[in-house]
Amino acid sequence: MKGSSQPAEAKTKTQSMSHRLGMFRMPSAQMRGQGLRNQRIHTHLMEMMLNLKQTIEKNLMYLMTRHLQQDLVLEEQRHSQATSEQEALLGRLMYQLVNLLQSGAMGGLGLQPSCPSLDVRCDVRGGQWAQSSRQPDWPVHQLSDLEATFVSQHLSSRGMDISALYHSSFQDYNIYQRDKYHEDKNTMGYINLGLSENKLCLDLMTERLSQSDMNYIEDDLLQYPDWRGQPFLREEVARFLTYYCKVPDQLDPENVVVLNGCSSVFSTLAMVLCDPGEAFLIPAPSYGGFAFSACLYSKVELILVHLDSEVTDANLHPFQLTVDKMEQALLEARLTGKKVRGLILINPQNPLGDVYSRDSLQEYLEFAKKYHLHVIIDEIYMLSVFDEFITFHSVLSMESLPDPNRTHVIWGTSKDFGISGFRFGVLYTHNREVASAVSSFGYLHGISGIAQHKLCRLLQDREWIDKVYLPTYRSRLQIAHGYMTKKLEALGIPFLNRGSGLYIWMNLKMYLDPCTFEEELLLHRRFLDNKLILSRGRTYMCKEPGWFRITFADKPLLLKQAMHRFYQVLSEQKQDLIMKQLENAQRE
Amino acid sequence: MKGSSQPAEAKTKTQSMSHRLGMFRMPSAQMRGQGLRNQRIHTHLMEMMLNLKQTIEKNLMYLMTRHLQQDLVLEEQRHSQATSEQEALLGRLMYQLVNLLQSGAMGGLGLQPSCPSLDVRCDVRGGQWAQSSRQPDWPVHQLSDLEATFVSQHLSSRGMDISALYHSSFQDYNIYQRDKYHEDKNTMGYINLGLSENKLCLDLMTERLSQSDMNYIEDDLLQYPDWRGQPFLREEVARFLTYYCKVPDQLDPENVVVLNGCSSVFSTLAMVLCDPGEAFLIPAPSYGGFAFSACLYSKVELILVHLDSEVTDANLHPFQLTVDKMEQALLEARLTGKKVRGLILINPQNPLGDVYSRDSLQEYLEFAKKYHLHVIIDEIYMLSVFDEFITFHSVLSMESLPDPNRTHVIWGTSKDFGISGFRFGVLYTHNREVASAVSSFGYLHGISGIAQHKLCRLLQDREWIDKVYLPTYRSRLQIAHGYMTKKLEALGIPFLNRGSGLYIWMNLKMYLDPCTFEEELLLHRRFLDNKLILSRGRTYMCKEPGWFRITFADKPLLLKQAMHRFYQVLSEQKQDLIMKQLENAQRE
Repeated sequence: MKGSSQPAEAKTKTQSMSHRLGMFRMPSAQMRGQGLRNQRIHTHLMEMMLNLKQTIEKNLMYLMTRHLQQDLVLEEQRHSQATSEQEALLGRLMYQLVNLLQSGAMGGLGLQPSCPSLDVRCDVRGGQWAQSSRQPDWPVHQLSDLEATFVSQHLSSRGMDISALYHSSFQDYNIYQRDKYHEDKNTMGYINLGLSENKLCLDLMTERLSQSDMNYIEDDLLQYPDWRGQPFLREEVARFLTYYCKVPDQLDPENVVVLNGCSSVFSTLAMVLCDPGEAFLIPAPSYGGFAFSACLYSKVELILVHLDSEVTDANLHPFQLTVDKMEQALLEARLTGKKVRGLILINPQNPLGDVYSRDSLQEYLEFAKKYHLHVIIDEIYMLSVFDEFITFHSVLSMESLPDPNRTHVIWGTSKDFGISGFRFGVLYTHNREVASAVSSFGYLHGISGIAQHKLCRLLQDREWIDKVYLPTYRSRLQIAHGYMTKKLEALGIPFLNRGSGLYIWMNLKMYLDPCTFEEELLLHRRFLDNKLILSRGRTYMCKEPGWFRITFADKPLLLKQAMHRFYQVLSEQKQDLIMKQLENAQRE
Repeated sequence: MKGSSQPAEAKTKTQSMSHRLGMFRMPSAQMRGQGLRNQRIHTHLMEMMLNLKQTIEKNLMYLMTRHLQQDLVLEEQRHSQATSEQEALLGRLMYQLVNLLQSGAMGGLGLQPSCPSLDVRCDVRGGQWAQSSRQPDWPVHQLSDLEATFVSQHLSSRGMDISALYHSSFQDYNIYQRDKYHEDKNTMGYINLGLSENKLCLDLMTERLSQSDMNYIEDDLLQYPDWRGQPFLREEVARFLTYYCKVPDQLDPENVVVLNGCSSVFSTLAMVLCDPGEAFLIPAPSYGGFAFSACLYSKVELILVHLDSEVTDANLHPFQLTVDKMEQALLEARLTGKKVRGLILINPQNPLGDVYSRDSLQEYLEFAKKYHLHVIIDEIYMLSVFDEFITFHSVLSMESLPDPNRTHVIWGTSKDFGISGFRFGVLYTHNREVASAVSSFGYLHGISGIAQHKLCRLLQDREWIDKVYLPTYRSRLQIAHGYMTKKLEALGIPFLNRGSGLYIWMNLKMYLDPCTFEEELLLHRRFLDNKLILSRGRTYMCKEPGWFRITFADKPLLLKQAMHRFYQVLSEQKQDLIMKQLENAQRE
């Protein structure tokens, strides 16, 4: 169950454990303040690390082999208990390690900054810990907070797990929220090009949302709603998707469910299509939010279909998705007794930017039908195709879907309209039973009535969307994309040029030596230390280290500032690499 | 686990099964159209019903006794599987029953309307089925939908369970949403006095929300938020609660988490405080939404502390909550191996309207502390106390909380400000660890940025709240409450007069003969048939049949129309009771 086909840092206790141990590192502020290197402590730490890693691997192997032989459900419980105990033990060991580091630091001893496998900030209840670790005057008593996380008197086991996962996954995000770059007010703040946020048309959107039709209030908007979404909004969504997805027949508002964000739609689909421990196939690299959402409530596993960057006879373009690869991953998963219920597709793809051809789509859907797999297809970037030679095909546009009752489309306004703050996500499915089951969760995932009204008015205004918004948006996407790709070309950085989405998938492996996920993380940290947030390939469950996703859908001035920081970090990194290679050469 | 301390219709498969079978009945439109009574079919049906009931009881007993002897977790799984199979079997039997009824009706045969224990509408995927059963030309092919629900090819087991639970719980609500009473446009629509909705000040609220300060838009409101809630809103919430809860020291915005509704707050608290199968104590009668929320995601059990209406030496007023009663329920639950993690309190109470004295509160909290129980206290009606001789005491006002790290307060604007459509719920807890864990779920329970802005402006406007809103609101509450209580007094209906909340808890047992939950449901159905929705005691997990909650926080004209329907139903019911008694007398 815990094989290689697992998403990074977003799945299970055992994983997050090995993760924790793979990223242990001192806060950079302190490291820089201390020049001394103590080889003895370093070696001692490395030994402890290796021992811990071996313990985990042994236990993982034991659990995995036992797992295959026995009843899945019962085993999962023993597994969970065993990993809990392991986690408590490891937590204490880590606490001791931190203490050791701390005492070393207090005693005037330092560790070399590039010490591999040392960074705790990405895990272990990152939130408070990470924050404090960024302060130069990091107080000792923070350590007791760290220890406390492993022996919480107040939280349930799942509460501790979820909290730890959230704070590790959203650590950069939360830092950014508290210290955002602003061109006038906070020029030293964090620039976040790790988040897929469209800030290209905030001017247009603010103007449109300020018009008088938006500020309508009626009693129904203030009262308990239809939990599927207000009928007027579902009707408008059906009309909107019919038009922009080029659907042969008018879509039915009864098949629409509206929730507070696409992640809520995905999470509820996972609840009603899978039982705990069952799985979805997902091509990787892929949006990590699905993995996070799957952990919060549904406890659905993601089985990765690993794609390769290398071009071969079987892989005509980098990271090509083929039915063969999906079939292989499916059959391997089945061999381990895993129940695979569906396939997750993103079109246009995130982070690759691929827009699937009609033929490819057809093949993927036929494959899913053959194996009775649900297809959850996320088309959230459908209006964000800016290369005029590329045509987006929605599955809703297909004359006859191979398996309409198992095809479920997700869309929202966060990306295409750049209003992620509205918290708006749509499910369209021909399967009334699924729509009905998902709507049960509307009670806990509802949207404000006034926001529903505004969204309805926005989607209704075709004139504005077609004549004002979309032409401007796409032209700005082109310009920003052009700026960013030129910069990358100038640096000789390879990247995918796919003409859709808000981001570019680029390869920075030339800056990593050795090319490992540890080094990828260290480079990521280096960006962070320079107040630039990117997202690294590992969080997209990419199997090859060195890939990063960089968002370009922002204002020119901000992009310029960001690329300045970007360039600075890569220069530093290159200097370090040269130094390292020289040292190695001297040693030989 | 399935003992008497279980909430009605909101917990387990086995329960909803017995429920289903207890409420089988033909649609009234058809019944009324057919005057013939066929005693043979009736007897045959009754026999089948009795057999089914015995089967369920036998199985329940078997499961319960096995349960006590064995490991809890493992047993739960077998139990779940067994009940699944039972449910499938029962589903098919019910389908056959419906077919039989249908063929009888089609063949011109009728059944007497008051046939006890016959009503399918409250369960079995109520949504679609219930709707179609309300149409006079109810088509036969609807039956296949019913059958299909028991052998879904597309939903997971939990998906089926949750969908069935939702559609049975929200059936009346969904009917109401599609056919609401309107004084001009739809005078034949449903009047819903079952929902606790405050419609007394929609005029004031609409006016306030239409003012220019509300329609402010800035970039941050349109973008991804702080998942705990936007800082400006959390700060305002802290100030607001400090002021209205009379808190000795200023509350800390870092202890505030803002989600899309109080049910989301409760659901996430249940996730982070309990592991699946663990339990909360809750006095009953109590708001049923907690039971529903607990089933959607957290799978937390509610252990009922049953309160009595009868006044005795130990029960100084009807439904008095005492520490003794809580302690007894706790110890009984522990004897069965149940892990009780917390206590849920609602103050002012729903549906009773009780406002806890400072001393009572202190006792409840001391009790919780003694047993290391978390206390989730829902103060959502805190500003809806309209009797000027009654003072509300928030737990936040207490000089020293017995166990501050285990005391968690829920509040929102749905009731006090009558804007349930905003989907806004607040958690305040001194326990930073709990706040932090709950905020992990903000990703799936966020509120629109523009709604957060409006809520902030609203809470900020103390001048308007204190001088305009609250005086008007409370005076209107008094008037509406006065009108309603006079009507009830005139009818000789006993009720609780507690001076808070939007509803009255009344006793209609004089209209039930025998006084059973089946008869309570039939009376409820009779109200529904007359387009009046009330909520019956069973949905508040009340152990005594005959209690109903009626909301009075609506416009005078609507209340008048509602009470007209109410009176009509009770007159009919009384007529039927007299007829029944006469028939019984003749037989003897």
